[in-house]
Amino acid sequence: MDELNPRIARAALSRLMEPSDLQGMALLKILGPVQTLAVAVGRIRLDAESERAVAELLDEETALEWRGLEDCLARWRPRLADLAPERDLGVMQRLGGGLMIPEDAAWPRALSDLALTEPIGLWYRSAAMAADRLIPQLEDCIAVVGSRDSTRYGESVTAELVHGLAGSGKTILSGGAYGIDAAAHRAALQRQSGMQPGVQPGGWLPTIAVMAGGLDRFYPSGNEGLLREVAARGILLAEVPPGSNPTRYRFLQRNRLIAALSCATVVVEARWRSGALNTAHHALGLGRAMAAVPGSVYSANSAGCHRLLREGAQCVSDAAEILELVLPIGSMAGERSTESRETDGLSPQDLMLLDALPLRSEAVVEKLSAVAGLQEGAVRAGLGRLEVLGLAKRGTEGWLRSHRRSGVSDRH
Amino acid sequence: MDELNPRIARAALSRLMEPSDLQGMALLKILGPVQTLAVAVGRIRLDAESERAVAELLDEETALEWRGLEDCLARWRPRLADLAPERDLGVMQRLGGGLMIPEDAAWPRALSDLALTEPIGLWYRSAAMAADRLIPQLEDCIAVVGSRDSTRYGESVTAELVHGLAGSGKTILSGGAYGIDAAAHRAALQRQSGMQPGVQPGGWLPTIAVMAGGLDRFYPSGNEGLLREVAARGILLAEVPPGSNPTRYRFLQRNRLIAALSCATVVVEARWRSGALNTAHHALGLGRAMAAVPGSVYSANSAGCHRLLREGAQCVSDAAEILELVLPIGSMAGERSTESRETDGLSPQDLMLLDALPLRSEAVVEKLSAVAGLQEGAVRAGLGRLEVLGLAKRGTEGWLRSHRRSGVSDRH
Repeated sequence: MDELNPRIARAALSRLMEPSDLQGMALLKILGPVQTLAVAVGRIRLDAESERAVAELLDEETALEWRGLEDCLARWRPRLADLAPERDLGVMQRLGGGLMIPEDAAWPRALSDLALTEPIGLWYRSAAMAADRLIPQLEDCIAVVGSRDSTRYGESVTAELVHGLAGSGKTILSGGAYGIDAAAHRAALQRQSGMQPGVQPGGWLPTIAVMAGGLDRFYPSGNEGLLREVAARGILLAEVPPGSNPTRYRFLQRNRLIAALSCATVVVEARWRSGALNTAHHALGLGRAMAAVPGSVYSANSAGCHRLLREGAQCVSDAAEILELVLPIGSMAGERSTESRETDGLSPQDLMLLDALPLRSEAVVEKLSAVAGLQEGAVRAGLGRLEVLGLAKRGTEGWLRSHRRSGVSDRH
Repeated sequence: MDELNPRIARAALSRLMEPSDLQGMALLKILGPVQTLAVAVGRIRLDAESERAVAELLDEETALEWRGLEDCLARWRPRLADLAPERDLGVMQRLGGGLMIPEDAAWPRALSDLALTEPIGLWYRSAAMAADRLIPQLEDCIAVVGSRDSTRYGESVTAELVHGLAGSGKTILSGGAYGIDAAAHRAALQRQSGMQPGVQPGGWLPTIAVMAGGLDRFYPSGNEGLLREVAARGILLAEVPPGSNPTRYRFLQRNRLIAALSCATVVVEARWRSGALNTAHHALGLGRAMAAVPGSVYSANSAGCHRLLREGAQCVSDAAEILELVLPIGSMAGERSTESRETDGLSPQDLMLLDALPLRSEAVVEKLSAVAGLQEGAVRAGLGRLEVLGLAKRGTEGWLRSHRRSGVSDRH
């Protein structure tokens, strides 16, 4: 194998090391992929100066100590026999994919926020990407995640949120699982199908699924059709090479990628304990927006969302409120159209006067002054303002209430 | 009338001035009730030094300027003819009530947080209070408020929250309106009825209704039965004297009293625009806890709650989460009983190992080392730990998975 090629080296390292193998990642930062692989396979020795740098990096960035190279080698050795990076790259190429690496211009810069846990590379599978599409930049990616055992409420909210976000040119990231994840991917693809070809934002990518296992298989199998469609029109991503099982550990690690690639993570439904909360906490830790959709306090599937709201997540009810989180200029949600009340904008004094005006009989200024608790001059001035607003009218003997429009207020 | 009696003076002033008449309140702070009334009725003149103090106080505490006494007198003069404080006190006494004033030892100290808008006095109506009960102290009072046009969801949540809060000895404050307010008062009274006499916390008062109009009438009339029961077993309060109409302005002012008397204000259901939000904002402004109950994003009656959540309200789903807000020691909601997972507390390495263990066949240490990506020593140590936990067992040829208990995780 061509050990001078960083792509081949990273392909091999992604099989050798589990995601976020911190000692391995520290070696990689100091030596680069080609030399790290050479050290890992025992072709070259680790010089003392580099080892000191690795130990220092670990000490600075983690709670972990460098316990010597042998500690790493013993962990990687059992997998050395399986190393076949060129075969792995070939497998993915035949499936319409490949391995993106930090040395590529197209590498998503957002991942560097993961520091030492930045992935070794990203295996991808995508017909859309082959046609020269890249992972959209951070501000155009929004993660929509949630429980596998979703309710119809959660699926319906997901579909509406994603419809609005996709309609604003956002790419929807999720984990490809049953439930909310599947609903999110599906809604993004449907939004694309519903668009006139000319209307599609240039280069807009509907959805990205970040998987916990190798991309040569579709997991879970019940989502095969959906995931094939994501690979055809969006992107499948994974940091583990083809043939890797989606283990629990890899699911948890995968969540950090979803959070890091997205400017906001929205949890639509989640139980009190749910992996979606893990994704949300990663988002918060990375300084990304963390949002949760509220639901009935009687729904166990919303308990995790309410937990997040108590932990600092933004409460979002629709796509506009999510967009507001990622577009700090302007306040779209604040502009929510709502029926205005005829008493909007009245001063307290004019409100008092309005309350004092009789609906059917008429009242003279002196009477209004006593009822409203305002001096007569203030009553006269106020009546003038209310008359202009259509809220007061002159009768034959005094004044009475008028109406701009009929409207029942919710509560005083 | 006995102008040297501060109760009589305040009874008169509460008819003369609308709630939060800032110029009047500044006069009251500087002169005290007896002299303020004497000035208001024209019996004595305002000396220059006092007037300067009043102007300074207004300047410091409000955005309002002192425009001279005549400005106030012109506002109050129309109501002078109606002044009959001894009659008002007599009316309330016959109804089983009276007027509590800041000069009383029993005056709720919490109201001083309202500064210049502290009420002139509190008219009350209460059989329970006549029997020597007082308004409970701040930390024992919780406001539960919401829309008049409540849904069954809101009423049901209100009943459950109040049941739990009342069971913890809290007094429920609300506004006596239809909908959530009525559900809150009713649930508190029912909780009391359901208690064995001996079980009732000593001196516990179930509920207080703070009204916008005079307490000689029950408003709204559809709540008459309920409000009579509140007067019998709890307290009705108002800052306006008997005979006063519940005007819009007085409803808004009333909300500040509910917020000030309660250590937390919980909004159960509210539309995007609702007076309940006004109460919640008062609570926030006073440094009290502000909480909102989430609901379906499709329910217009929860839109105001979600708005509050976006504005900094705490998300609460049950009574324990409300109590947690007002009992900062300990974290009751954090202790929520929830089924634990068998993988709880495992290190990432042991989790990797667990994932690598086959369910039916058996695997030797070398194989586990390669699959899990852990060195053999780590595999052996981890197998020991997992065996102790009942998660791994030795077979005839190697190791396989075992189970502490059956449990399906929600999502990885």
